[in-house]
Amino acid sequence: MATTTWKRRHIISLVDFTAAEYETVLQTAASFREVLSRGTKKVPALQGQVVTNMFFEASTRTRSSFELAAKRLSADILNFAPGISSLSKGETILDTAKTYLAMGTTIMVIRHEDAGVPTMIAQEMDRLESGVCILNAGDGQHQHPSQALLDIYTITSVLDPEKPRLELLAGKKVAIVGDILHSRVARSNIYSLTAAGAEVHLAGPPTLLPRLFEKFLENEHPGKLFVHWHLEPALENADFVMTLRLQKERMTENLIPSLREYHRLYGITRDRIKLCRPEVKVLHPGPTNRGVEITSDLMDDPKLSLIPQQVTSGVAVRMALLYLIGSSHSQN
Amino acid sequence: MATTTWKRRHIISLVDFTAAEYETVLQTAASFREVLSRGTKKVPALQGQVVTNMFFEASTRTRSSFELAAKRLSADILNFAPGISSLSKGETILDTAKTYLAMGTTIMVIRHEDAGVPTMIAQEMDRLESGVCILNAGDGQHQHPSQALLDIYTITSVLDPEKPRLELLAGKKVAIVGDILHSRVARSNIYSLTAAGAEVHLAGPPTLLPRLFEKFLENEHPGKLFVHWHLEPALENADFVMTLRLQKERMTENLIPSLREYHRLYGITRDRIKLCRPEVKVLHPGPTNRGVEITSDLMDDPKLSLIPQQVTSGVAVRMALLYLIGSSHSQN
Amino acid sequence: MATTTWKRRHIISLVDFTAAEYETVLQTAASFREVLSRGTKKVPALQGQVVTNMFFEASTRTRSSFELAAKRLSADILNFAPGISSLSKGETILDTAKTYLAMGTTIMVIRHEDAGVPTMIAQEMDRLESGVCILNAGDGQHQHPSQALLDIYTITSVLDPEKPRLELLAGKKVAIVGDILHSRVARSNIYSLTAAGAEVHLAGPPTLLPRLFEKFLENEHPGKLFVHWHLEPALENADFVMTLRLQKERMTENLIPSLREYHRLYGITRDRIKLCRPEVKVLHPGPTNRGVEITSDLMDDPKLSLIPQQVTSGVAVRMALLYLIGSSHSQN
Repeated sequence: MATTTWKRRHIISLVDFTAAEYETVLQTAASFREVLSRGTKKVPALQGQVVTNMFFEASTRTRSSFELAAKRLSADILNFAPGISSLSKGETILDTAKTYLAMGTTIMVIRHEDAGVPTMIAQEMDRLESGVCILNAGDGQHQHPSQALLDIYTITSVLDPEKPRLELLAGKKVAIVGDILHSRVARSNIYSLTAAGAEVHLAGPPTLLPRLFEKFLENEHPGKLFVHWHLEPALENADFVMTLRLQKERMTENLIPSLREYHRLYGITRDRIKLCRPEVKVLHPGPTNRGVEITSDLMDDPKLSLIPQQVTSGVAVRMALLYLIGSSHSQN
Repeated sequence: MATTTWKRRHIISLVDFTAAEYETVLQTAASFREVLSRGTKKVPALQGQVVTNMFFEASTRTRSSFELAAKRLSADILNFAPGISSLSKGETILDTAKTYLAMGTTIMVIRHEDAGVPTMIAQEMDRLESGVCILNAGDGQHQHPSQALLDIYTITSVLDPEKPRLELLAGKKVAIVGDILHSRVARSNIYSLTAAGAEVHLAGPPTLLPRLFEKFLENEHPGKLFVHWHLEPALENADFVMTLRLQKERMTENLIPSLREYHRLYGITRDRIKLCRPEVKVLHPGPTNRGVEITSDLMDDPKLSLIPQQVTSGVAVRMALLYLIGSSHSQN
Repeated sequence: MATTTWKRRHIISLVDFTAAEYETVLQTAASFREVLSRGTKKVPALQGQVVTNMFFEASTRTRSSFELAAKRLSADILNFAPGISSLSKGETILDTAKTYLAMGTTIMVIRHEDAGVPTMIAQEMDRLESGVCILNAGDGQHQHPSQALLDIYTITSVLDPEKPRLELLAGKKVAIVGDILHSRVARSNIYSLTAAGAEVHLAGPPTLLPRLFEKFLENEHPGKLFVHWHLEPALENADFVMTLRLQKERMTENLIPSLREYHRLYGITRDRIKLCRPEVKVLHPGPTNRGVEITSDLMDDPKLSLIPQQVTSGVAVRMALLYLIGSSHSQN
């Protein structure tokens, strides 16, 4: 696998990801997808390395996905669970990270409810010249790069199963629907999709896609991002529709009137999907609220829904990310 | 090991288990018992397979036993803990299961406080033609097949350590004592023991062994099941006595007056055990309330108690179950 | 590695540790330190053995450290977490231990908030002639032997990185500062340091280092232990300073007036450290309350602080302990 050109030690945000980096991730993930379809399913790439999962925020799928990816690469895995940890004894997050560094951790996979924690730890690890690699598994409302990378891998694999690559997305219309304001998944996807040359249409209620945020987005991605407060123009002739999870606490925060009202205005239904191209596919980062973001029957329609493929791609893409940064590590 | 005849993909209940299936489990477990006594203790049988433990209900011994069994077979293991999971975010159980399927899970070991959850997941997995195998690790008051299979393995191993087999139980008298009504362990054991030709005597207070349930049992197992509201006739000349765990919440539900009263009437004591055959053995699925279901000294008497053997057999029997269904999987 | 002379099955306390045992631990840890610096980082020493971590009390670093050590030795690991366990169902600790014994556990690593639990389990395991080895990972205010052994390994490695050995400590002055009364870390370190011939100076407030305790210590270690209620005489010309974690609950127990007051009197600061020898090093078992036991900048000063080295040594020393008792096990 072509890793000779990989230079990035930490994967925290997609803001400055280059086209070459996206391509390397897609190619490497495709190779691992093949490994996973074989009998043995294991490669010795990270043997002797210690991957520590530091999930300060609860997660089923992302934690398990990273854990399985690391196992497939023959790494040793430590799981840090804040419940049974020193944090309750007043230790700082940086000291916790430095403890795991001193134990021999070479890669830290970090999820935290606050934006910036992975960056803060990465800066400290670099300051110490530790060589440790940081993988952001979702930080607050900031970024969730592995999710956006598995999304782009899933989409380009639909377009060419043999050779998923960035250019396949050029000129495609992708709608992202829902709580854009609070979504680290949307934020990461906006960068990867516009980098690939797709036309990205955001749709959501004004409370979750406010005018100020719209201006910011248009400045950052001129001519590639389109913002809508109604669903229909976003769906029209769309090639892909990404629905975002709606946090139920948005109701108590008075940002949406009710789940039912939200579904009536922004839920993906059999009727509305007809506005899209006939071969349209729907994605959702999960976990899904059935009947809120999308109707239950659309979610289960294998011709339409890419949700299972996203989860499967997740393991391959995370193997690729661990492998790429982990190999750069061992070259140091 | 003879697996060519194994056809069953899911082990959820013993209701329709055939004599041939019982024998295959006993033989396969005996082979693994031998593997466990060797130095290396590992076989590559499930290499590359992913066993996901989905324990929605707390458990020490069953979860650890399955985990160790899967490790001994070289499987990769994912642990799903509902506390730190998507369930709290409103995901359905089926969607959680489908997420683990999409990650590459080939065997799901499921415990849930509600009867029927493993069946529901198995049906969905079959509908999706996923090839995934389901192992019921205890569902509500329904079934706990691996426990009954390890019990029958433990008992037949006492009768012939060289070659545990079903026929050894023919004509033996087995007493099952306690909270029959709520016990999935009892329910599974009734099927396996009567299938083996044993005479099964149930004993418990009327609140925990009501007339209606008695009628149901007698219809299902004509001539092989005997129901008693007093302990003595059940113990008389018994070859084996299975005591059941008494849930302390049965008191607040007014089903028993007190633990002390329960022990006075249904506890296994040194005096009462004299009613049984001299070579009688006592079993308990654990965890035990010492001094309630059984006196502390009987529980610790190695001539009488099979409790440690049950736990040890548990690992071998669960290796056998994972191996049998897992191998059928890879043939698909 | 020289294990032929190792006889001790359980490591619960350092009270009766011999000089030969200390030396064997230091040498074995040094060998493993070398293994850890290699590529593969794994040895097959405990293949087929089951190490069960029974942490009844929360812990980040100690649990992870033992887990990684056991993985490096190729053992299978079971984690017992009291939250999701049979203890909540009324099972006794001994029955839990016997369950893990019956599953095939060969080494139990035990942490408990009550002193004596590891001893109690070890006695039961011996009574059953199980051959199981017990490693105390901290019991109440009694002992924490692996911590003291990693401390002495860290210190002697500073004095001679090539060949850490006990005699290097002869005549050195070591100050232990803080809550001596409640500290199992202090209690274990007092035995190892005095055994090595060091002069040990304890310093702490009278409430945390009461007269009665002082008398006891002086009787046990005549001529080697010195007790101070002021920090300065302990620090004067010290070669090493061990700071102890201050539990915040000591305030509500009225044993200290406030963290600030404590820091003013007993905190290690840049000014105070000048009382020590120029090449002085500071240790802390972690997790640290920055600005309480020690100022933040001293803690981060690599010329002064041995805290990261302690964590790194921890993995090597715990590998050594598991290896030494585990090998004695397989000789049985």
